Amino acid sequence: MKNPLSELINELSKLPGIGRKSASKISYHIYRSDEAYNKRLSEVICEIKQKIRLCKMCFCLTEKEICEICDSGLRDKNILCVVKEPEDVFLIEKTREFHGIYHVLHGLISPIDGINPADLKIDELLKKVENNTVTEIIIALNPNIKGDATSLYISSILKNRNIKITRLASGLPFGSDLEYIDDLTLKMALTERREM
Amino acid sequence: MKNPLSELINELSKLPGIGRKSASKISYHIYRSDEAYNKRLSEVICEIKQKIRLCKMCFCLTEKEICEICDSGLRDKNILCVVKEPEDVFLIEKTREFHGIYHVLHGLISPIDGINPADLKIDELLKKVENNTVTEIIIALNPNIKGDATSLYISSILKNRNIKITRLASGLPFGSDLEYIDDLTLKMALTERREM
Repeated sequence: MKNPLSELINELSKLPGIGRKSASKISYHIYRSDEAYNKRLSEVICEIKQKIRLCKMCFCLTEKEICEICDSGLRDKNILCVVKEPEDVFLIEKTREFHGIYHVLHGLISPIDGINPADLKIDELLKKVENNTVTEIIIALNPNIKGDATSLYISSILKNRNIKITRLASGLPFGSDLEYIDDLTLKMALTERREM
Repeated sequence: MKNPLSELINELSKLPGIGRKSASKISYHIYRSDEAYNKRLSEVICEIKQKIRLCKMCFCLTEKEICEICDSGLRDKNILCVVKEPEDVFLIEKTREFHGIYHVLHGLISPIDGINPADLKIDELLKKVENNTVTEIIIALNPNIKGDATSLYISSILKNRNIKITRLASGLPFGSDLEYIDDLTLKMALTERREM
């Protein structure tokens, strides 16, 4: 049956994490929602690409030229946190633990997928380091092969610059149980053990 | 942070089955999708309430005056399947087992929620039965208290009319294991046991 409802189900099931059953449930919900909500949802979906752009400083998502974090006088511009995606900025912000500024790479080096350093915001990172008084770079990339490769590449091009380069600690997640931890994590937790 | 992205996350997390994490994942996905897809999705969301209405015969959802099922010459107009919601029509259609027509009640009787027979399409069901040559009514409502109450009410107002009234079989789901079946289902499966 080809009708607006099945079209909506089709379009929704293209979204990540939405199977046909959820898409169908959401579609009927939208059919029953009040028109104002549907209009609002429809508008924000349509506008997002026009309204949101990359911050000229950190390449995170923002509505303005410069994002709120880069523009803030309260942030320590000497500490730079390098992340893969804009999502990561919001995740780290939620911890309220970091008070420096960010640099979003927009990907990780992955020659097998044809993603080379030139495809990422690595040149921009170098320029930022050269033109500013960065004292520490925290590399906050995922602890996996691509993340490690990118971390190593960045730390290699930034060495001999008198900048402290750190990366996120690897180890046991909080509240975890040794019994259910995978071998690699346990191995990392052992090699990176800390004195108490 | 109040921006189009967080607005989209907000609006999406109002949908059923979408928490803030999924809403955030979907929002970033939409930000990265091509504009054509976003426009399409936005349009179908906005149009659904204008384009879809209730079939004048069965009260299922349709684009036309009369839905495809009611309008089809291939369906047996003498067998009427009574369901709670339009969703149920599509679920039963998927089994390809039913070749009659439907009647959507748009709810179940539930005095505790203030839903009385007059709030449902029960008068319309009576009229349909009076004006047509219905020989069997299959009551396909959920096997729970509200569904049972509504089924009993319908069968009581339709008795003495020489119409066969049936309801969906209750019992063990296909592929299930006695060990994991709840008491009530097992009880129903026992009382409604069938000769082999």
